[in-house]
Amino acid sequence: VTVEIITIGDELTSGSSQDTNATFIAQQLHTIGIEVVKITTVGDDTEKIVDALRNAQQKVGCVIVTGGLGPTVDDITAKAAAEALRRKLVLNKIALKAMEERFKKYDRKMSPNNVKQAYLPSDSTIIPNPIGTACGFYLARSNTLFFFLPGVPREMKRMFEESVIPIIKREQPETTIVSSCVLKIFGESESYCDQVLSDLIKSEKEVAFAFLPHYPEISLKLTMRGKDGKYIEKKLKTLERKIKTKKYLGDVIFGKDEETLEEVVGKLLRSKGATISIAESCTGGLITHRLTNAPGSSDYLERSLVVYSDKAKKELLKVPASILKRHGAVSKEVAESMAKGVKSLSKTTFGLAVTGIAGPAGGTSEKPVGTVFISFSHKRQVITQKCSFYGDREQMKFMTSQYALDILRKYLIKD
Amino acid sequence: VTVEIITIGDELTSGSSQDTNATFIAQQLHTIGIEVVKITTVGDDTEKIVDALRNAQQKVGCVIVTGGLGPTVDDITAKAAAEALRRKLVLNKIALKAMEERFKKYDRKMSPNNVKQAYLPSDSTIIPNPIGTACGFYLARSNTLFFFLPGVPREMKRMFEESVIPIIKREQPETTIVSSCVLKIFGESESYCDQVLSDLIKSEKEVAFAFLPHYPEISLKLTMRGKDGKYIEKKLKTLERKIKTKKYLGDVIFGKDEETLEEVVGKLLRSKGATISIAESCTGGLITHRLTNAPGSSDYLERSLVVYSDKAKKELLKVPASILKRHGAVSKEVAESMAKGVKSLSKTTFGLAVTGIAGPAGGTSEKPVGTVFISFSHKRQVITQKCSFYGDREQMKFMTSQYALDILRKYLIKD
Repeated sequence: VTVEIITIGDELTSGSSQDTNATFIAQQLHTIGIEVVKITTVGDDTEKIVDALRNAQQKVGCVIVTGGLGPTVDDITAKAAAEALRRKLVLNKIALKAMEERFKKYDRKMSPNNVKQAYLPSDSTIIPNPIGTACGFYLARSNTLFFFLPGVPREMKRMFEESVIPIIKREQPETTIVSSCVLKIFGESESYCDQVLSDLIKSEKEVAFAFLPHYPEISLKLTMRGKDGKYIEKKLKTLERKIKTKKYLGDVIFGKDEETLEEVVGKLLRSKGATISIAESCTGGLITHRLTNAPGSSDYLERSLVVYSDKAKKELLKVPASILKRHGAVSKEVAESMAKGVKSLSKTTFGLAVTGIAGPAGGTSEKPVGTVFISFSHKRQVITQKCSFYGDREQMKFMTSQYALDILRKYLIKD
Repeated sequence: VTVEIITIGDELTSGSSQDTNATFIAQQLHTIGIEVVKITTVGDDTEKIVDALRNAQQKVGCVIVTGGLGPTVDDITAKAAAEALRRKLVLNKIALKAMEERFKKYDRKMSPNNVKQAYLPSDSTIIPNPIGTACGFYLARSNTLFFFLPGVPREMKRMFEESVIPIIKREQPETTIVSSCVLKIFGESESYCDQVLSDLIKSEKEVAFAFLPHYPEISLKLTMRGKDGKYIEKKLKTLERKIKTKKYLGDVIFGKDEETLEEVVGKLLRSKGATISIAESCTGGLITHRLTNAPGSSDYLERSLVVYSDKAKKELLKVPASILKRHGAVSKEVAESMAKGVKSLSKTTFGLAVTGIAGPAGGTSEKPVGTVFISFSHKRQVITQKCSFYGDREQMKFMTSQYALDILRKYLIKD
């Protein structure tokens, strides 16, 4: 079975709302080995809906439609479906009864508009909606199965999982297993990774490689299909280990699947029983915010100081006034003094500090906007890296936090 | 001119990535009065891309395609475009030169894979990419104009705004003006706002009202179409003023259009010549991160302390050990002491402090996960609010930062 998803609504074609329904359905189908060949979005327009439904009928075995089942005048999906699939629009008594019961339960009065929602194409089977008014329905036409679901994401999701997935699985008892894993990369370009892995990509015929950019990170997705789950799992694990060796991508891979860089750094700190304190200038708290997104981060994060002013740098971190004066707040010397200062004052294993010019103002020819110094202090050692970023203020903040966390990660895996 | 958007990528049809490109393009076209009649998404498959391009050619005057222009093997859009539009795939010297210059500028080596990116359908015109490697291109076929852009959102957006919009506008000199403004709401529900505004929504026939939830905020979008730009502007301004009066939504509206809550707070602080210092516990730097996203925030943000440990609260903010012991770190008393402490130590006009349990661990029956105290200190006054949030850790952090910034905003507009 191949599937087309059709999402309906003026709010989608006008760009007012993000279409999260298609993504959700595609993802759900992908995990049970069913391929979505096309996603089509049209506005609340009978002709365009009819056209989309008829086109889909010629190409796929299953069509999943969302949106346009509500009570208002612009909800015309049921009518358009009847026209496209050459059925009559009739009052469905089961749908009406379900609706009446729902209104009774919540002690609300049913409006004539709601009755409209019970008019469905003839021979439709109802898909119950446990958390909303609009029923869904499905029907077959020349070997193609059409499912119609409301557009409200939480109702659609629940109905899709509880009713649509079981019907699709029944229609296709022999489902293929699709297993995939995502390796997360930071610090190298997509074309570099592609080239380094080119012999593997060519030789591993059973596995599909896909690079998905999530700037500034890249996700490398490995996907495998088949019947033998155990074989697939083993194969993917072996391949993952191979890619992580120095010959291929090595420590450019920082994590797997849903893992974030900050979670990886947190796990490394915890596994070493280490603590950290941070002094942030240009990132304005972002590094700490990211690290504290991980539950239990209070185990290793002792404190963090956002020292935006020179006064705060002097008072809180004991950065000498002479260094600030001689080298300026954005300098290697100040970054080092901040990292050492925050570590010794907080008595933590590590100290991390950043200072830079996030812009848009404040740049000079010598130190343009985007100049950042990242300093990392451990025992008597201080490592400082100068970076030059481009982009807007928020990108610059994010890139700085990303590099700072990655410097920490690389130190921790080698330490 | 009517438009179809075609987005290409296996990551879209498999549900791995949300398609934000189509939404962005639809939104941009909507504001200049151009209708998107369809959005089509297909995977990285030559046959399906060709099919989608040929279908679109029959229906619309303009097709905007994103994705599949990268250097890797699964990037096949240029090849499929050549096939669909019956052109040869030829090395475009302008595209190659632009790429070579880019690599030279960043002192990186160009790989043979990158050269592939310069092979485009014959008679294509280049769309420059100022921030990435992949050029875009456009060409006409039987009265339909086809634009091809990379799938990386920030590159696509920039190229669309700088190059595609001007070309489309030139093709269609007599456009209807569609003007809209967005009023941003925090602190009331959509149904409350709908009810309060019901008489306005009914009486203002020329203006379309739409509520777009952006949890925890709501955007109220007012849209008006017509030929007379001045009349539309005036009408929308008058309506905006009306909605902002106490009779309607009042100060529940915190901002307009792209304005963020943190920008609004920043502007208010600057206009009063006030400074602020912040002590964050459960938000882990998020409040400060948000405030420092606004350029020039160093004018009012003096410093911020992320005091995750009790030790840091005592050492940095002089929170008395007795208060911590008696009331616990998450308490009204500690929040007040933190707000007063950070203000007096930093010598700022205002002090803001939050302490709470972001979870998932750390809750008790008396103080469950989601219990948060927000304290705000000015002169001798301290205002403290207790909140109870639900959701996951990141939602809790965000809601706390949102309430804290909104408390600050409401104080500043009344002060």
